[in-house]
This record gives sequence, C-alpha cells and structure tokens, in this order.
Amino acid sequence: MSPEEIVNAFIAAIEAKDIDTAMSMVSETISYENVPMAPISGRENVAATLDAFLTPVSNIDWQILNQWAIGRTVINERLDRFQFDNGWLEMPVAGIFEIDDNDQIVLWRDYFDLNTYVRRMAELTGE
Amino acid sequence: MSPEEIVNAFIAAIEAKDIDTAMSMVSETISYENVPMAPISGRENVAATLDAFLTPVSNIDWQILNQWAIGRTVINERLDRFQFDNGWLEMPVAGIFEIDDNDQIVLWRDYFDLNTYVRRMAELTGE
Repeated sequence: MSPEEIVNAFIAAIEAKDIDTAMSMVSETISYENVPMAPISGRENVAATLDAFLTPVSNIDWQILNQWAIGRTVINERLDRFQFDNGWLEMPVAGIFEIDDNDQIVLWRDYFDLNTYVRRMAELTGE
Repeated sequence: MSPEEIVNAFIAAIEAKDIDTAMSMVSETISYENVPMAPISGRENVAATLDAFLTPVSNIDWQILNQWAIGRTVINERLDRFQFDNGWLEMPVAGIFEIDDNDQIVLWRDYFDLNTYVRRMAELTGE
C-alpha cells in the first residue's frame, strides 16, 4: 500500500472502531500528537487513548476533505464527526502522518481547536 | 516566484509588520480562515484583521518548522511567536495556502488551538 492508502485504511479502521486493526498499522514507537496537548508515545498508549476516546461514541465518520501525499508524508484536512446519543460533534482537523520504511505510521499529528471539542461534548453529554 | 517562495515572502512581510507588502501578495478575493472562527473574505477585510492583530505586538517571529509545496498549494507547520511587553506568546499552527495563476494567495487557512492564544494573551496583557 502507498502511504496515502495506509492513512486511508487507518482512518477506516478508526471509523469501524477496530483499534486492533488500526494499531497494526502504527509503529511501536509512534508519536500521536494532538497539538494543544502532550504527545502520546508508543502503540500501547495510543491504543488506550483511542479506546477511551472512541468507546462513548456510537458512530464515527471522519471525512477527508483534502489530502496530499509527499513522499512518505501524508497531510489531510478532515471533518472528524462523532455521534453521541444526543447528536453529532464535528471537528475540523489538519492532520500530518509520517510513514516509515516498514509501512507503519510513526507520526500522527493533528491540529485543531480543542474547545470546539470540549464545548460540544459538554452540550451533548454534560461532561 | 514559486508558490513556496510567495508564502515565504508573505510570512516575511507579516514578520516585518508590512501589511501593504503582504496585501500585495494576496488576491482581492482572498479567503483567510482561522478555522475555529468565521472566514474573513477579501483583501480589505484581511488587511484590517491583520492590522488589529499585529498592532499591539512588538515583535513577530513566525518559524516555519516544516513546509511542503504540492502544485499551487503550500502547507506548513509553524510556530507563530508574538512578543508583547511582558513576554512571548507562542502558537503552533498548521497552515494551508493556495496560490492562483496570477501568483496571488487566494486561500490562507490556519488550524490551531484558539485557547492557546486566548489564555496566553490574558496572562501577558490582562485582555
């Protein structure tokens, strides 16, 4: 698979809430960086983070609006949508992925407005 | 100039607080999108926004950490630094620029965490 196909498959696995498949596509030493927050290092920590993040969500729909592949870097603009019982949370994101020579994702860095998530989450869940 | 050189020159003009030069590089119909906020349309509105934004800042240092050019699209990861009297405000940004056939910037879309700006601004200026 090309770097772009790897990212597409990774996002499809997240949409399917199939964390095992998603984690099979990342390197053991992956750095997952939600830019306003501290980076999350290593496959196990990323799996735990995604699990906590995705468990309360009934449907996941991450729309890739634009995507570019430059060598082993893939960049996309996305609208990450999460369905909770009371409605959808929608978050615009710019994501940067680096794919290593073993075709594994070693870097996943997302830029977004954290408050867009926090505010809508509070509306939908009271949390 | 190549699309990448245009973006570099545009950012250098902003760092110099030379809004006239910066505006000479953008299309009359530019869309400037700070993603958590409403888009700003047209050269005049963008000039007014930049003026309000840059006037209270004594020094501007926008570091381009990574940059990619794909056709007429330029994408960068930046650390946008603004110096106020009491210290620096630093904001990580992912920016996407589109350059038209007249070598003018028609789209400037930045993804960032708005609260990183707001919180540090309050610390530094009380505003």
